[in-house]
Amino acid sequence: MVKRYLALTPLDEAIDVMRNAFSCTPRVVTVPLAAAAGRITATPIFSRISVPPRHLSAMDGIAVRAGDTHDASEQHPVTLSDAVRVNTGNVIPEGYDAVIMIEDVQVEEGRYVIRAAVSPWQHVRPVGEDIGESEMILSSLHRIRPFDIGALAAYGIDRVDVFDVSIGLIPTGSELVPLGTLPAPGQVVESNMHMAAAHLQAIGARCVHYPITPDEPDLLRAAVEQGVRENDMLIISAGSSKGTRDYTVGIIGELGEVLIHGVAIKPAKPVIIGKIDGKPVIGMPGYPLACATILREAMEPLLGMYGFSPPVRETVPARLTTTLHSDIGTDEFVLLSVGRIGGGWVAVPQSRGAGVQMSGVRANAYLTIDRNAEGAMAGDEIRASLLVPRESAEESLLITGSHDPALDYLADMTRRQGIAMHTTHTGSMGGLLTLKKGECHAAPMHLLGADGDYNIPYLRKYLPDEELVLLCVAERQQGVVSREGLTLEDITAHTFVNRQKGSGTRMLLDHLLRERGIDSSAITGYDREYTTHLAIALAVKTGEADMGVCVYSAAKALGLPFVPVGTERYELVARKSTLRNDTRLAALFTCVSSDSFKETLTALGGYDIRETGVRRGLP
Amino acid sequence: MVKRYLALTPLDEAIDVMRNAFSCTPRVVTVPLAAAAGRITATPIFSRISVPPRHLSAMDGIAVRAGDTHDASEQHPVTLSDAVRVNTGNVIPEGYDAVIMIEDVQVEEGRYVIRAAVSPWQHVRPVGEDIGESEMILSSLHRIRPFDIGALAAYGIDRVDVFDVSIGLIPTGSELVPLGTLPAPGQVVESNMHMAAAHLQAIGARCVHYPITPDEPDLLRAAVEQGVRENDMLIISAGSSKGTRDYTVGIIGELGEVLIHGVAIKPAKPVIIGKIDGKPVIGMPGYPLACATILREAMEPLLGMYGFSPPVRETVPARLTTTLHSDIGTDEFVLLSVGRIGGGWVAVPQSRGAGVQMSGVRANAYLTIDRNAEGAMAGDEIRASLLVPRESAEESLLITGSHDPALDYLADMTRRQGIAMHTTHTGSMGGLLTLKKGECHAAPMHLLGADGDYNIPYLRKYLPDEELVLLCVAERQQGVVSREGLTLEDITAHTFVNRQKGSGTRMLLDHLLRERGIDSSAITGYDREYTTHLAIALAVKTGEADMGVCVYSAAKALGLPFVPVGTERYELVARKSTLRNDTRLAALFTCVSSDSFKETLTALGGYDIRETGVRRGLP
Repeated sequence: MVKRYLALTPLDEAIDVMRNAFSCTPRVVTVPLAAAAGRITATPIFSRISVPPRHLSAMDGIAVRAGDTHDASEQHPVTLSDAVRVNTGNVIPEGYDAVIMIEDVQVEEGRYVIRAAVSPWQHVRPVGEDIGESEMILSSLHRIRPFDIGALAAYGIDRVDVFDVSIGLIPTGSELVPLGTLPAPGQVVESNMHMAAAHLQAIGARCVHYPITPDEPDLLRAAVEQGVRENDMLIISAGSSKGTRDYTVGIIGELGEVLIHGVAIKPAKPVIIGKIDGKPVIGMPGYPLACATILREAMEPLLGMYGFSPPVRETVPARLTTTLHSDIGTDEFVLLSVGRIGGGWVAVPQSRGAGVQMSGVRANAYLTIDRNAEGAMAGDEIRASLLVPRESAEESLLITGSHDPALDYLADMTRRQGIAMHTTHTGSMGGLLTLKKGECHAAPMHLLGADGDYNIPYLRKYLPDEELVLLCVAERQQGVVSREGLTLEDITAHTFVNRQKGSGTRMLLDHLLRERGIDSSAITGYDREYTTHLAIALAVKTGEADMGVCVYSAAKALGLPFVPVGTERYELVARKSTLRNDTRLAALFTCVSSDSFKETLTALGGYDIRETGVRRGLP
Repeated sequence: MVKRYLALTPLDEAIDVMRNAFSCTPRVVTVPLAAAAGRITATPIFSRISVPPRHLSAMDGIAVRAGDTHDASEQHPVTLSDAVRVNTGNVIPEGYDAVIMIEDVQVEEGRYVIRAAVSPWQHVRPVGEDIGESEMILSSLHRIRPFDIGALAAYGIDRVDVFDVSIGLIPTGSELVPLGTLPAPGQVVESNMHMAAAHLQAIGARCVHYPITPDEPDLLRAAVEQGVRENDMLIISAGSSKGTRDYTVGIIGELGEVLIHGVAIKPAKPVIIGKIDGKPVIGMPGYPLACATILREAMEPLLGMYGFSPPVRETVPARLTTTLHSDIGTDEFVLLSVGRIGGGWVAVPQSRGAGVQMSGVRANAYLTIDRNAEGAMAGDEIRASLLVPRESAEESLLITGSHDPALDYLADMTRRQGIAMHTTHTGSMGGLLTLKKGECHAAPMHLLGADGDYNIPYLRKYLPDEELVLLCVAERQQGVVSREGLTLEDITAHTFVNRQKGSGTRMLLDHLLRERGIDSSAITGYDREYTTHLAIALAVKTGEADMGVCVYSAAKALGLPFVPVGTERYELVARKSTLRNDTRLAALFTCVSSDSFKETLTALGGYDIRETGVRRGLP
């Protein structure tokens, strides 16, 4: 039976459908104790022995009969002739009932002199003090911790029955190439099922990663049959949307039942939930962020139904920096970079483009926009669910503004001090406005003022009352990137790609064009905008345009000629109060001034480091 | 050089000693991507490719030249003869610059009719939108998450350089037998290094678990030499205290340097921190709880110095139920069972006996008593560090009072509903007083009143103004346990072991002795007290005494004769308000009344189930 992709099912309904459709009975396997950490007990576990099995000495000392010591005192030492030397953990010999610590005993010719009476059972660990034979050590459904491993070993257990689930992972798509192969244009490295394996294994599932199946129905059908036969669940990736080669839904319907095609969540609408031979078969969307969403929002609850314990993610209250519109009827998940600025948390949304996998790498949290909400407004206090440990999120440094590859190297350097730099690329003006709102720790910028000075004229205008500090990262070279060594004078005779409005590079270009009297309307591609230096260089490399303006490092990375047109002062701007109070920002500033950072810039090329580390103040 | 075990080093000083003594430079290994989840990057990782490598279609549809669509509108459809069918992810053919969704296209005889103009780059993913070749994907010192695995794969990375540390684990002690062997009296199953392996592997270390070395200096020396040679760190367990066979400190001093012998923490004072060939060599104390403390308090910081990320444990504010005295100068760690009662957290200290390994199994949190504090008072608000996820701690049900094996089976049954029952054995009166203070969810008790009724007389006296509910778990049989089928009439002619004062069993015994006119001073062993039924049965089984009084299940577990002396009403008592407001307690009450619990009791034996599930109310 095939249920058509007509109406989207709300997420919570989809979870209910799964709960009702599947037995949710995990398989039980017996594993050696050494492999049991993190597994879930399938049955209660009972001690095979009593611990201690006899009365044991709890100290290094001598075992005595308490009755023999009654007369001993400081004034009247008693000499014991039949006391027995015992170490901690030794069995107390039959007939003895107390231990005297060796420190309190004087040894004389093999006999022991004591100066105090002792009570029966002093320093004795009675039989069964810890656990009795047949007592329950662990209940069922217990996630085995390292400490439990030691206790189970001590209580005579060397293997345990735990829940097990095997998940088959089938990557499909003729455009896919396996890991280890560099993709040609039109090809994509198969990556989603590697992510899925890591994600699901961390929850305790076993994963069987099958080879890539091309988009041919017969091959896919055979792969699905094998995957269902050999596992408890199956994930097919991708082939869940409506392209001409998406056969997954048809094959699931043919071999079993399509329960749901399309869930009202974003990203990841075109997910398929099916059932073959009573087993869950999930058709994943192809975009990595969509796949990650389904792993978190659908596979985790499904594994929870099978007795596993998916992670519960901590949430923090955070002020949202950007308004997010969302469709009524759709639960949307927006990736965030969160960090603490002053007393509170700030949440910067990542790109919502499903194809921008780096968003998921950069993000340390996400926001759930409920399907009954139209979105969230800039300034709203939202709940951010953390994707990293809270302590790691606390160490986030939010850097928003103009992009430069040097920032990545600064992120790497500050990481050694535990700092997690989160850089958001908005261009210089975007950074300035974010700084004004107090929604970043520092803003990198290179805004050329009318007076020829960088940044300060803009800061005076937009943040007139603020005490600011500017730290020069470098005087960096901007130049013309091309395949044939073109110069700015060639701009009207060739196709061009531009940076976005508000970016410092765009302003520098406009300044240079004005100086040369070149009309921008005469430039083919002046309106074609990219937001990063590398994107400009890539557009030139791939022939989309003949030239563009970017920094040297981007041209160098792609092996393209670079003709300098000028340097610009690339500065990090922060509030003085933030720098004073935030040790992480102070550490970043120290990094910028370090010799090792200057060496890094020199090695990268395209930077004049004479001003690197120079601070200016406002007012 | 050997530094003698004279003065104990404070914990924070010991950590500083380690930081200064060791290079803290982790080794770097290259691992396949599939094995990289959870590992820490040793270097930044750069993309080998641009993603997308060309302009790609972001939709299923047709690729067009935007210029060809300018005239299209609802009134004036345009027919495109050279549009190209593309699916999501396909490369846009050379010369095309926009995509129209297939839903917005009418296909007529292989040609495409459109009814709206499109802008350039609509539904196109530009080259490098996600990442550019040579851009940094991850900085160094990044803990690789499952999502990162997918991104690295997509960006052409199939192996990564990560930090590695190999830790040798040497169990020593002639009393140890390996896992899988049932220990004879005087023997102990080697368990600490199994716990250590699980603990340290979870942080990312590799562990090499060596065979047990007996207490012979030459063999131990050879094992230490091999362990240091083959690993980056070494742990020797135990042999760190001052017994006659503790050679560890001498051998470390001989082969290298003893930096510290004895740290001012409890449990775990006799730890050794040494250095051989520049590598850390740690001598662990033998008690499992002491070993666990050193793993958490010393090994985790040490691995942190080597670039690993030990877990940070969440803390919750909790009201301490029992006063804990602690020595000035010693940091003490006390295991806790914490749970929420009403609005707040309550923390019940576990046994502080270093030999009670079950404390660590039962605990879900711990308290650190700083060395400058003399302890913590009952009623103090303390910070409890959680040893389980917070969500699991939130599901704790604190049950304090008289012990019965049936409680373990109830814990197992309620676990299926996500409830974590934490049972503390204090005897019936202990439970009643804990309930009075509001420091448990329910108290199991069997207190025989003067009027022959159970529990209600005591509750009327001690909690006169409270609205209470009593739920009968069972009428359980108490009886004489012996090796030879003795009866209560034999008590003065044989040795006896007793339950502790305040326990219901003790009260029942005293009642029965009064009825029979037997003077307790005539009973040998009347003052020898144990706190559980199984301990009584074990004492009888091992010959420590001839008889005792306990419940049937304990005698049965150890295969001993049992002569009933009477039944007693074993009830769970809770406040009505708690039962009304706490769904977990309500679930426990439901379990007690269930048929499946009655079946369990019948299978265990020794219970009369006719009253099981019957509720009584007060007032």
